[in-house]
Amino acid sequence: MQTIHRIQQYLDEHRSRFEEDLCALLRFPSVSADPGCREAVHQTAGWLKDHLAGLGLSSELIATEGSPLVYAESPPVPGAPCVLVYGHYDVQPPDPWDQWITPPFEPTVRDGNIHARGATDDKGQMLTHLHGAEAWLKTAGSLPVQLKFLLEGEEEVGSHSLSRYLGRAAERLACDVIVISDTPQFGPNQPAITCGLRGIAYYELRLQGPAHDLHSGSFGGAVANPINAAARMLAAMIDGRGHVQIPGFYQDVRPIPPIEREELAELPFDEARFREQLQVDSLAGEAGYTTLERRWARPSFDVHGIAGGYQGEGGKTVLPARAVAKFSFRLVPDQQPEAITDALQRFLEARCPPGIRMQLELLHGSTGFLLPRENPYLAAACRAIEAGFGRTPLLIREGGSIPIVSEFNRHLGVPCLLLGWGLDDDNMHAPNEKFSLADFHRGIRASACLWYEMSPSFTVRKEI
Amino acid sequence: MQTIHRIQQYLDEHRSRFEEDLCALLRFPSVSADPGCREAVHQTAGWLKDHLAGLGLSSELIATEGSPLVYAESPPVPGAPCVLVYGHYDVQPPDPWDQWITPPFEPTVRDGNIHARGATDDKGQMLTHLHGAEAWLKTAGSLPVQLKFLLEGEEEVGSHSLSRYLGRAAERLACDVIVISDTPQFGPNQPAITCGLRGIAYYELRLQGPAHDLHSGSFGGAVANPINAAARMLAAMIDGRGHVQIPGFYQDVRPIPPIEREELAELPFDEARFREQLQVDSLAGEAGYTTLERRWARPSFDVHGIAGGYQGEGGKTVLPARAVAKFSFRLVPDQQPEAITDALQRFLEARCPPGIRMQLELLHGSTGFLLPRENPYLAAACRAIEAGFGRTPLLIREGGSIPIVSEFNRHLGVPCLLLGWGLDDDNMHAPNEKFSLADFHRGIRASACLWYEMSPSFTVRKEI
Repeated sequence: MQTIHRIQQYLDEHRSRFEEDLCALLRFPSVSADPGCREAVHQTAGWLKDHLAGLGLSSELIATEGSPLVYAESPPVPGAPCVLVYGHYDVQPPDPWDQWITPPFEPTVRDGNIHARGATDDKGQMLTHLHGAEAWLKTAGSLPVQLKFLLEGEEEVGSHSLSRYLGRAAERLACDVIVISDTPQFGPNQPAITCGLRGIAYYELRLQGPAHDLHSGSFGGAVANPINAAARMLAAMIDGRGHVQIPGFYQDVRPIPPIEREELAELPFDEARFREQLQVDSLAGEAGYTTLERRWARPSFDVHGIAGGYQGEGGKTVLPARAVAKFSFRLVPDQQPEAITDALQRFLEARCPPGIRMQLELLHGSTGFLLPRENPYLAAACRAIEAGFGRTPLLIREGGSIPIVSEFNRHLGVPCLLLGWGLDDDNMHAPNEKFSLADFHRGIRASACLWYEMSPSFTVRKEI
Repeated sequence: MQTIHRIQQYLDEHRSRFEEDLCALLRFPSVSADPGCREAVHQTAGWLKDHLAGLGLSSELIATEGSPLVYAESPPVPGAPCVLVYGHYDVQPPDPWDQWITPPFEPTVRDGNIHARGATDDKGQMLTHLHGAEAWLKTAGSLPVQLKFLLEGEEEVGSHSLSRYLGRAAERLACDVIVISDTPQFGPNQPAITCGLRGIAYYELRLQGPAHDLHSGSFGGAVANPINAAARMLAAMIDGRGHVQIPGFYQDVRPIPPIEREELAELPFDEARFREQLQVDSLAGEAGYTTLERRWARPSFDVHGIAGGYQGEGGKTVLPARAVAKFSFRLVPDQQPEAITDALQRFLEARCPPGIRMQLELLHGSTGFLLPRENPYLAAACRAIEAGFGRTPLLIREGGSIPIVSEFNRHLGVPCLLLGWGLDDDNMHAPNEKFSLADFHRGIRASACLWYEMSPSFTVRKEI
């Protein structure tokens, strides 16, 4: 029996076990932003290390100041490339809890989807590559390429530990290409390879007015109000046409090539369906750009959270002491978070009213990414996805940030292949996150095929 | 022994008991804004009804759709006026709880002040009049004027039930003047009578963007963000010089009479000390007005609370579905909340961006108030305060709202005397609310003297 058939058979026979593994992984509340989840984060890393060791790979935990890194590798394959597979086992905070139909850390299957925090981002997608490797190791006994697995637990909070590790482990991690599955397909049954990502500069702005809350009747009108100030400062950052107002903000923005604007316009993107899905009457954004351009290839400004004063039922006539806002700019090549931070600090200081003290903190930042179309591994990935999903993938961009993508490029000097198995409506970062089980299994098959497609040896191909 | 000396003696002998009564009253968590406190609100009303009955007054609870009213009265005194004493037994929510040095509903004495939610606003001040009446009833056996006590439990949420009751009980409540102690002195040992109050129009603005929270990377820049929108809409309401931007907002504002501007300028108001007390580097407000004018006699705009998106630790890259802001305008005579609401609704609708649905709700509204200087009971009150505090009171305004003051004027056609025993730094509506016990006892003495000063009978005066 040809290897590829034995692998296919292995994948078919182990579908239930793969789903059980996925559930086990999703049950860990590995919320990296929440200090209360520290133990769960470590348990998740331990589970992954043990699982990789169980495949026969040399596997270890790398301690960091934060969450441990999980590292595993297979032996080098002469004449074949070395592929580094990256994923992250940490997840976004699950709040608001009351909007989950089933609890975020009790994976539940409904309508062919598994629902849990991390289902698609990134535990479910990450796991496909472990299972894809397992199929080779348990049938052929070895892999057609060398694989290095590097799984981190701080992606949702800025990947600081991995970033530091890359700075000192470039030799160990040396590879020819990096594979990451942490992006969506273009749509159901429309797999895609993401050739561009936006960066991010994420801030917390803290405003302090009077030392403590005051009665707004006795003091209102004479003492600066930090929420009034927050509204004014946040509103100043973007105009009614969606243009960021910070001086120099657009200076390093690479314009979208005319050819790509044409490609984007031809993508089967149904704006009416998109609006319906989000339940909004109309879309919004930067004047002069289409919805896909706004989402993928133009910078943006969003406030992610704001808090201050009285938030309970009814009314409280308080002049609050403090206000806090969390916001970010999505960046595109070649914007640099550091330059944005400097300009932003000056911009806000100039607009911070008398009687208010401000603190601005960059919580995390990363640059955007663009994969050259001529990269040879891109063609291999297209063939593998076609084998796994039965469809040629579209070449798209994505608006989200995978901060580590630019770090990899900087430290290892190789590009990332972003092979996404998720869907736009998977509720990443929102309640009721989900992942299609059909895509989970298709992803595993595509992953197993990818190792073969990347191997240049004709002999190996014939044998299979 | 003259009556006034017997009363003085009675007050001296019962100081501890009065303080015990105050503590008992402060222990009830009668937060009218919190549905979870409904039972405590009813218990507080019951305690007051029993206490008034214990003084020998006819006393009852008047059921309403919300908190019960407590009503008690003494017999008419021929030839002497009838005085209605108003107070409120409900309190502001105590949050933020973690900023209280001692728990808000465990009254604690530190540095001569009693600390508890409601200490000054209004349980402590209200109680002085019950104790002032007690001294007469337990020594002289009767009061020199007729007293009607009307105590409500919804002042902090708009006095809706009392407002409705006034509409149908004007005959029962008929009186010559109304006495309210729910305002501050001008400063320590500087008692004041408040001859003007600001009104209020308090709103909740709810903004809805997409049906649920979205990943800000995948959607940011193409979908309207309700927090961005809230910032823009709130910022539009007031300019950098403190002028409200809603068309027609200043149309009904009565200018401050030049003579009053002179009086205000002569008040011993120490702006440096005021700043220090609030721990702010500089004050703020409407251009062209002094701090006291801004606080007392000019309208203002404050956001009291804002919430939306992620408020936990660290960062979450969410494009939130909703944002909520609570804000108010302080109004001065002759601004009307209804007119403001109409103009505000149009103003905000015109500024609500595509993709956002808005709901604006007026939570409560009341007009401002000005007491004519020639009112005869004002002179009586000045003498009583001089007797109680040893100082002639200043005639001032206050920036807060006592919504019921304008309602009383409308339904009963009589003015309110606002005799305040509190202090500006009593932390009303804030953590660590307090009330000076010395002022508590001075207020009781002033109250006892007031009933006498208001009685026109020369015979009664001689007897005393």
